[in-house]
Amino acid sequence: MLSIQEYQSYFVAHLKKNAVAQDPENLYEPAEYILNLGGKRLRPVLTLMTTDIYNGDYKEALSAALSIEVFHNFTLVHDDIMDDAPLRRGHQTVHEKWDINTGILSGDAMLIMAYKFLEYYDSEIFKSLISVFTKTALEVCEGQQYDVDFETRDDVTIPEYLKMIEYKTGVLVAAAMKMGAIIAGASETDQDHIYNFGRHLGIAFQLQDDYLDAFGDPKTFGKQVGGDIIENKKTYLYLKALAFSDDDDKATLQRLFSSNPDDDSQKINTVKAIFKSTGASEATKNAIEGYTEKAYSVLEYLDISSQNKKGLKAFAFNLMNRTT
Amino acid sequence: MLSIQEYQSYFVAHLKKNAVAQDPENLYEPAEYILNLGGKRLRPVLTLMTTDIYNGDYKEALSAALSIEVFHNFTLVHDDIMDDAPLRRGHQTVHEKWDINTGILSGDAMLIMAYKFLEYYDSEIFKSLISVFTKTALEVCEGQQYDVDFETRDDVTIPEYLKMIEYKTGVLVAAAMKMGAIIAGASETDQDHIYNFGRHLGIAFQLQDDYLDAFGDPKTFGKQVGGDIIENKKTYLYLKALAFSDDDDKATLQRLFSSNPDDDSQKINTVKAIFKSTGASEATKNAIEGYTEKAYSVLEYLDISSQNKKGLKAFAFNLMNRTT
Repeated sequence: MLSIQEYQSYFVAHLKKNAVAQDPENLYEPAEYILNLGGKRLRPVLTLMTTDIYNGDYKEALSAALSIEVFHNFTLVHDDIMDDAPLRRGHQTVHEKWDINTGILSGDAMLIMAYKFLEYYDSEIFKSLISVFTKTALEVCEGQQYDVDFETRDDVTIPEYLKMIEYKTGVLVAAAMKMGAIIAGASETDQDHIYNFGRHLGIAFQLQDDYLDAFGDPKTFGKQVGGDIIENKKTYLYLKALAFSDDDDKATLQRLFSSNPDDDSQKINTVKAIFKSTGASEATKNAIEGYTEKAYSVLEYLDISSQNKKGLKAFAFNLMNRTT
Repeated sequence: MLSIQEYQSYFVAHLKKNAVAQDPENLYEPAEYILNLGGKRLRPVLTLMTTDIYNGDYKEALSAALSIEVFHNFTLVHDDIMDDAPLRRGHQTVHEKWDINTGILSGDAMLIMAYKFLEYYDSEIFKSLISVFTKTALEVCEGQQYDVDFETRDDVTIPEYLKMIEYKTGVLVAAAMKMGAIIAGASETDQDHIYNFGRHLGIAFQLQDDYLDAFGDPKTFGKQVGGDIIENKKTYLYLKALAFSDDDDKATLQRLFSSNPDDDSQKINTVKAIFKSTGASEATKNAIEGYTEKAYSVLEYLDISSQNKKGLKAFAFNLMNRTT
C-alpha cells in the first residue's frame, strides 16, 4: 500500500495526461477548469488503494478512478447551479464564471465522459463496473433530490436525513472502493464488504462535514465556518438540536433558521450555543464515531492482509480526525 | 418488416410497462411526464426496425430503443431550459411545469437511466452498445454547444451549420439504427453502412424541419409556422438566403434578424419572400433531396433482403414527404 500522497500524485498525473477534448471550447473548458481546482481526490484515491490492497495493479484502476472523479465533479457543477453557489474551493463556480447554460451542458458532457473512461476495461469487468456506476449515479441524483425537497419541509426526520447523506455522499465513496475491488478481481463477497466499508465511511465523512462547518477551526477548515447556519441548512446538528431542545430553544432555533440577518455573527453564536447546550454537538460526534466504528467492523471480514487492514484503518482514522 | 404503427405501438407498450421509479417523486415524475407526451418515436422505431431487417428479434431491441428514447427526451428537457422554451409538443416544458432545478436534476437522472436500460444485454453486446451510445451522446452535447455558440456569431458557414445538425440530430438517428444492427448480430461493415444511412437521413430530417418551420402547412405542422424566424434562428434557409442575396436583401434580412417586433406577421412574410426570391427555399429542398439520396445510395451495400431494402427506402421516402 502506497501513501495517500503517492496515490494522489499518480492520479493527478493521469488526470493531466488525459485532458478532455478541446473543441467546442465552451463545452470542454469548464470541465477542464473544475477538474483542475484540486481537492482531496478522496474518491479516486480510494479506488486506487482498493485495487492495491486486493493485490491488483493500481495503474489498472486509473481509468475507473478518473471516471469517479469526473462524475463527482459533474455533480458539483450541477449542484452549484441548484444551490446558486458562487464559490467552489475558493474559486468561481462554473455557472458564475460562464453562465447557467454552460454549467448545464458541460456538466452533461462530464457525466457522459465518466462513462467513456470506463471503456478502458474488457467487456466482463466493463459491465460489472458500469452496473455499480449507474446504480450509484442514480442514487446520487436521488440524494440530491431529497436534499432539495428537505429545504421546503419542516418535518424531516433523522432517518430521512441519514438516507439523504448516504445517497448523496456515502454510495459514491462506496462505489469508488467496490470498483477498485472489481478491477483487482476480488470476490463478490469482498466487493460487498468493501462497499459497506466505504458507505459507512462516506456517511461518517459527511456528518463530520456538518460538524466542522459549525465547530471547525476557521484557520484550517477552508470554508466559511457557520456557512450551513447562515444558509439555514437543516443538518444533523440542527435536527438533533430540535429533537433535544426545550420549547424556548426550539422556538429560537426555528426563528433563527427562517431569518437572514445582515450581521450573521450573532445568529451563528446563538445557534452554536444551542447545538452545544442541547447535546446536539456531542450526539453528532457520537454518530461520526458510530459510523466510523461500523466501517472498522467490516475490516475483519475482508480477505486482505492484516497489514492492509491496518492501512485501511489508519486511512479512515486520519480522514475522521481531519480539520479541513 | 412490420409497419411503423406496429413498431410504434410495441415500443409504447414497452415504455408503459417499464415505468420509471417512483421515489423521490420530484425526480421521476417529470421524466414520466416528458416520456408520455408522445411524439413520432422515430428513433426507437428505427432501432426495432433495424434489428428486424437484420433478422434479429425486434423484441430483443426494445431495451435499446427505450434507452435511445429516454436519452432523446433528456436532451429535450435540458435544451428547453437553455432555449427558455415554454412549450414542447403543445404542453408545458418540464422547467415550466416544475422549475429549472427540477429540469436539470430530472434530466440528469434520465441520462443515467438511458444507460441503465442497456444492462439488459450480455457483456459483449453491452460494451458495443455503450461505446456507440457514449460516443453519440458526447457528439449530441457538442452539437448543442455549436448551436448555442452560433446564436452569438455572425459568421457561421454552411459547412459549420451542417456539422452542427449532423451532431445535434444526425448521429442519434444513426446510432439508433447501428444499435439495432449490433443487437441483430450484423457485421461491422453493415453496422457502419446502416449508421451512415441513419446519419444522412437524420441530416435530411433536420433540414426538412428547418424548411417546414417556414413553409409548412399551419394545419398539419403542429408547431407555430415561422417560429424560427420569430426567434431569429440562423437556419439553413437563412444562411443560404444571406449567401444568395443582393446587398439590399442582405441588409433587410440582417435587420429583421436582429429585431423582435410585437407583430411578427410582417417580419415572417418579408423573410419568407426573401427565402423564396433568393432561391434559398429551393436550395434547401435540394439539400434535403441530396441527403435523402445519399441515404438511399447506402442501401445497395447492405447485406439484407431486397424486400427490406424497399421497406427501408419507403420509410425514408414517407419521412421526407411528411407535413408534420
